[in-house]
Amino acid sequence: MNGVSVVGVGMIPFGKYPEVNIVDLGWPAVKAALKDAGIDGKRIEAVYSGTSRGGAMTGQRIMGRLGLAGLPIVNVENACSSSSSAMAQAVLAVGSGAYDVVLVIGVEKLSKYGGGTLPMDEDDWEIGLGLTMPALYAMRASRYIHDYGLTLEQLAGVSVKNRKNGALNPDAQMKKPVTIEEVLASRMVSEPFTLLQCCPTGDGAAAIVLASDKVAKQIRQDAVRVRASHLTSGRFMTGFRDMTSPEITVRGAKETFEEAGLGPEDIDVAEVHDAFSIAELLYYEAFGFCPRGEAPHMLTSGATSLGGRIPVNPSGGLLAKGHPVGATGAAQIVEIVRQLRGEAGARQVEGARVGLTHATGGGISGFDHGACSIHIFQR
Amino acid sequence: MNGVSVVGVGMIPFGKYPEVNIVDLGWPAVKAALKDAGIDGKRIEAVYSGTSRGGAMTGQRIMGRLGLAGLPIVNVENACSSSSSAMAQAVLAVGSGAYDVVLVIGVEKLSKYGGGTLPMDEDDWEIGLGLTMPALYAMRASRYIHDYGLTLEQLAGVSVKNRKNGALNPDAQMKKPVTIEEVLASRMVSEPFTLLQCCPTGDGAAAIVLASDKVAKQIRQDAVRVRASHLTSGRFMTGFRDMTSPEITVRGAKETFEEAGLGPEDIDVAEVHDAFSIAELLYYEAFGFCPRGEAPHMLTSGATSLGGRIPVNPSGGLLAKGHPVGATGAAQIVEIVRQLRGEAGARQVEGARVGLTHATGGGISGFDHGACSIHIFQR
Repeated sequence: MNGVSVVGVGMIPFGKYPEVNIVDLGWPAVKAALKDAGIDGKRIEAVYSGTSRGGAMTGQRIMGRLGLAGLPIVNVENACSSSSSAMAQAVLAVGSGAYDVVLVIGVEKLSKYGGGTLPMDEDDWEIGLGLTMPALYAMRASRYIHDYGLTLEQLAGVSVKNRKNGALNPDAQMKKPVTIEEVLASRMVSEPFTLLQCCPTGDGAAAIVLASDKVAKQIRQDAVRVRASHLTSGRFMTGFRDMTSPEITVRGAKETFEEAGLGPEDIDVAEVHDAFSIAELLYYEAFGFCPRGEAPHMLTSGATSLGGRIPVNPSGGLLAKGHPVGATGAAQIVEIVRQLRGEAGARQVEGARVGLTHATGGGISGFDHGACSIHIFQR
Repeated sequence: MNGVSVVGVGMIPFGKYPEVNIVDLGWPAVKAALKDAGIDGKRIEAVYSGTSRGGAMTGQRIMGRLGLAGLPIVNVENACSSSSSAMAQAVLAVGSGAYDVVLVIGVEKLSKYGGGTLPMDEDDWEIGLGLTMPALYAMRASRYIHDYGLTLEQLAGVSVKNRKNGALNPDAQMKKPVTIEEVLASRMVSEPFTLLQCCPTGDGAAAIVLASDKVAKQIRQDAVRVRASHLTSGRFMTGFRDMTSPEITVRGAKETFEEAGLGPEDIDVAEVHDAFSIAELLYYEAFGFCPRGEAPHMLTSGATSLGGRIPVNPSGGLLAKGHPVGATGAAQIVEIVRQLRGEAGARQVEGARVGLTHATGGGISGFDHGACSIHIFQR
């Protein structure tokens, strides 16, 4: 496979845009990415657009609005990893030599559901049993509390850290820092999660321009290299009994590190899928950033805060930047590219050279329904 | 790019399955394709699953049901060309050398909408003006009648031919032949289309196993070669005034023939996107099977009937085999592979060596929202 680099990124601030249709959410992100790359849209040779609930032909509608028709355009749906899966396809397409310049889009408008739950699929029997997303993650949190003595204050600390980061990110949906007391005092959603431990629903869009080795440096001297691009499917638990070790990410991480020829110790900054407070802790361990059972200590030690050994979710993560499902994976990549270029402003991770993104979608815990896409980038 | 072949195909009979969920529509098609290939499911290395309205994570849910987790699985949405776009991605993935054995799925359950219209996207203002799919195609039919003197009897003849073919296809939703009189006497839907000139809504699934040159012949001696695999986006009209020449297919056909190093005269059998009777006639001309304005004559001459120079839609096409949106492109490929292997029974095109499939999705006529995927196969 040929080398692939990111030469442009862009996004709109995540938030609630009930009056804006999904096409008008998406095209400004594409324009921003093209501007960031300094190229004309006519250089794009193919488009991979990720959305989970955006409706039919989202990518075509966005590109049509920009007057960029005639391209191969593929809409990718993989729940919360829709646009990171689109990214994986785009990397494969450029890596294969089929194209030199490819666009990735992630876009979602959840406000159209009026703040209610997302539409259910007819065979989602777990949801019929009450195992909605907050409840599924709450089960894992309860187990982790039982097994490792995690305290509610430690758990709330994930939200405090990520809200603090989000306050430094102009593109974050939630820009107000919060205290542990405020997190614990917010409305109970699914024990042990209070409201501030659940990512907000919202709308958003992000876009990425990829280029082959042949043209990347001509487009941007500081092109950021894709070191690994990985997609797999699997379970959110390991075997039958271990619900705090997400098999899909544990194996995905191992395979991704092998592909990159790197290990967890090489990662300078990471954006991981903190849909709920517990998730970030589980992923510290799944990626090998710390041994099992030590995530609460890793968090409270400050190792994953800005200025720590490996800052996690400097963007604010899903908890503060927001989680418009199909846009999330692409926005993680936007953040890591900005970090590796040294453009992250007040939330800059000093000297970051290698960054990782992790988006995992589908919540059915006991079955093989999940998707997980992990990318590693190097400046 | 490496060579890619089809080594297994399978589908379920198209029809209405209101009591069957989409996963249980999908997995039997996959099992059939694996059986046809004579391989164990564990040889599959990646999955591309096409659906337009199937809900989140359809491919993962189907593969999970079969106990085949741990693979990269990508859900592709491109409206009526969802699974043919999935096929194009799968061909790229195998052609790039990334995988040796890849599965393509197409699946849709339209009966869940209770026979009503599909959900609208919020920026589909054309639909708000009454330009639903039947109306859009009816406009083109009216124009064709005006420009070329097409008669209503000739137009009805498309349905008569395809229903006759469908009666020979055990997998077709509509198995009853009809006469021109019956077509014209059926309920008016959108002038000039009577009901029998509109494809039925329904449910279905189809699957395809692709293999690289390295392993294809080991799997099946009669592996069918992919000569061209093409996806583009564009318009259903040419420029501003020519609404009977679908730009997206005219250009897509030209580019696909170039890729294959073949021309329309080399095609022995074709499955084209006859969503409405007029569509098949427009596509005769778009593919260059006949000059513009001569499609009615080509039809009535019998050239596109079984036994004719180039049989079109021997499966019954969308008009008779049915059109479960995301499953259609894959099912067209199933038909062409069966034809090229000489397994099409009573509807066999004698001596067919080169076959073409064409699925085009998204109906917004004036804008650049369409997708079109064309494949050429050779035995």
